Amino acid sequence: MKEIYFDNAATTRVRPEVIELMDEVMGENYGNPSSRHILGVRAENYIKTAAGQIAATLKVKPQEIVFNSGGTEGNNMALIGTALARKGYGKHIISTNIEHAAVYKPLELLESLGFEVSIIGTDSKGHVDMEALKAAIRKDTILVSSMWVNNEMGAIEDIAAMGRLIKEANPRTYFHSDAIQAYGKLTLRPKEAFVDMMTVSAHKIHGPKGAGFIYINEKAHVDPTILGGGQQKDRRSGTENVPGIAGTGLAAELYKKEHAAIESRMLEIKDRLTDRLNAMEGVTVNSEKGKLSAPHIVSASFDGVRAEVLLHALEEKGIYVSSGSACSSNHPAISGTLKAIGVKNELLDSTLRFSFGIYNEPEEADEAADCISELLPQLRRFRRY
Amino acid sequence: MKEIYFDNAATTRVRPEVIELMDEVMGENYGNPSSRHILGVRAENYIKTAAGQIAATLKVKPQEIVFNSGGTEGNNMALIGTALARKGYGKHIISTNIEHAAVYKPLELLESLGFEVSIIGTDSKGHVDMEALKAAIRKDTILVSSMWVNNEMGAIEDIAAMGRLIKEANPRTYFHSDAIQAYGKLTLRPKEAFVDMMTVSAHKIHGPKGAGFIYINEKAHVDPTILGGGQQKDRRSGTENVPGIAGTGLAAELYKKEHAAIESRMLEIKDRLTDRLNAMEGVTVNSEKGKLSAPHIVSASFDGVRAEVLLHALEEKGIYVSSGSACSSNHPAISGTLKAIGVKNELLDSTLRFSFGIYNEPEEADEAADCISELLPQLRRFRRY
Repeated sequence: MKEIYFDNAATTRVRPEVIELMDEVMGENYGNPSSRHILGVRAENYIKTAAGQIAATLKVKPQEIVFNSGGTEGNNMALIGTALARKGYGKHIISTNIEHAAVYKPLELLESLGFEVSIIGTDSKGHVDMEALKAAIRKDTILVSSMWVNNEMGAIEDIAAMGRLIKEANPRTYFHSDAIQAYGKLTLRPKEAFVDMMTVSAHKIHGPKGAGFIYINEKAHVDPTILGGGQQKDRRSGTENVPGIAGTGLAAELYKKEHAAIESRMLEIKDRLTDRLNAMEGVTVNSEKGKLSAPHIVSASFDGVRAEVLLHALEEKGIYVSSGSACSSNHPAISGTLKAIGVKNELLDSTLRFSFGIYNEPEEADEAADCISELLPQLRRFRRY
Repeated sequence: MKEIYFDNAATTRVRPEVIELMDEVMGENYGNPSSRHILGVRAENYIKTAAGQIAATLKVKPQEIVFNSGGTEGNNMALIGTALARKGYGKHIISTNIEHAAVYKPLELLESLGFEVSIIGTDSKGHVDMEALKAAIRKDTILVSSMWVNNEMGAIEDIAAMGRLIKEANPRTYFHSDAIQAYGKLTLRPKEAFVDMMTVSAHKIHGPKGAGFIYINEKAHVDPTILGGGQQKDRRSGTENVPGIAGTGLAAELYKKEHAAIESRMLEIKDRLTDRLNAMEGVTVNSEKGKLSAPHIVSASFDGVRAEVLLHALEEKGIYVSSGSACSSNHPAISGTLKAIGVKNELLDSTLRFSFGIYNEPEEADEAADCISELLPQLRRFRRY
């Protein structure tokens, strides 16, 4: 059976070039970057190369890239690190109602430690309410954190407009963006968008799991949240994950090189699938077509069918998708994002996410759509009246 | 030129079996463990297997193993997680004067946040002063943290005796041990030693960098320090590093299987090198022979030679060693441990660490010793009078 992997927003297959490079680091150039002999120097060079590769994709400086264990750690670093470093200036933080748990859970921790958190709403397309944001910024606001692309339905936030607005209202307020679903899909320029910190995960761009980085503007003061031997200029201690870092750098470079081709293919898959789904009865596509939303995500709600049931029916046909966001499916609560953008209550539990990567083909959109239109009437026979 | 890698306490070459398994996970079974389709189930199974492999090496339960990004994160989790969870019971923490920066730096952070930290001394062999420890434990002592094996000179602490002493003095005090240099070298039984939390790093046992785990007794209440999607029963959020976890489990299992053979070979290398160094004029071996200290570490001080100079002279001969602890050599401060155990001031900057792994051969001890005795008179010609 031919398999169709439409769950690339959850995680991706690692590129063979990346695996090859990581094998070389693990098996041959396995030194500790802190060692002072040649094996240490070689290890350090992999890190420098990766920082350069990544910095080039963002037009930032290599020394502004700090490697870590992935997106969740990155968001924790940005939020808790800012809170620790800037609690003397204020204890007010602003975020949105469509953030990933890796943002809102650390914010809950900070609230329990005496910080105040304001949550800004979004419209039916998942776009942050700019007026509300402007009104919320205060003298003691030390941080605003907003996703760049929403993980559940692919909404793109106007981060540059938010950045301008924030810095105009309070130049001392830091701006953090969770760019885990945006990096590699959109062209990101954190400096132009006044973003001080930006979180990225490697395993969403066909790089390794357990690896990622955070861009930190060289002028920003953020305390480390993992302390120890002082690696990475004391910004993130712990022996560097050299194979993971090298793999992240290469995955980033390859993504940049193939960006135009990848983007147009993903958009084709997205729009084909969207058109087919829109043509089906009782199906609502929550994401927007074309460049109005991220190229790799289609969110759709299926009237009268439980997401879980459709997911497993598709799985039997070799089609792998996600219900809600896979990143937190250990907590199968109803999606906060879908609720936030106003998806009807009865559809919250009937929503699937289809997400694409570099190994998908446009024909797969048709094959998946064929399967769905065949399955829907069968599954609806079991609906509760 | 034949190379001799005697820097295994800094990091190790990854075993080929481990690389092969990780490649399989990255290239084929690359699913997100939180995904509900078969790729997610397969990913979850790698994690279950690894937890079982590791639990078997420690005689603990698989659900007591929490995976993370390595030893530094593990120590931070144990210390900060305990402080967060138990600050209601007390704010007093005890540690020793020979800990790694990944322990004393988080303790400094906790001090700045209102916790009180007592530091216990060690004798000339690096053994913790048990009387002082006993006297330091109070009603409000929430945690004692002690290394199991010292990273700079291989001293083995009597963790079981410490555990008994702590629990007798205050049954509510948690006991954490940094076992990064002990795991895979000694037979560790955390439950018998009353250890509630124990930190391990994979890259010290020929597993991958960026991976490790912490044993947390199922009865211990430790707050998470990285928050998000609630993975690993909410104890450590973030998409699990499945290839790294699988590799860690396999490395642990292989180490256990070959333990007796590895240990006797390492002891042979250690004792051969120790005997040869002891026979040289102006050389003091700081570590103990045989089973009195860890099998994989020899620390030696070289009268009248700067460590850095001898290190690079050996490097030119293809022999790779470490000055002090490589894990923190970005901070080339004088070693706290060597000072703590009373190494003479003039020798602090003249100390090298030789450390062994599964790929070393006993003959390499002789080859290294030959090189050193050839180099010492040459290098001492440049000594300052």
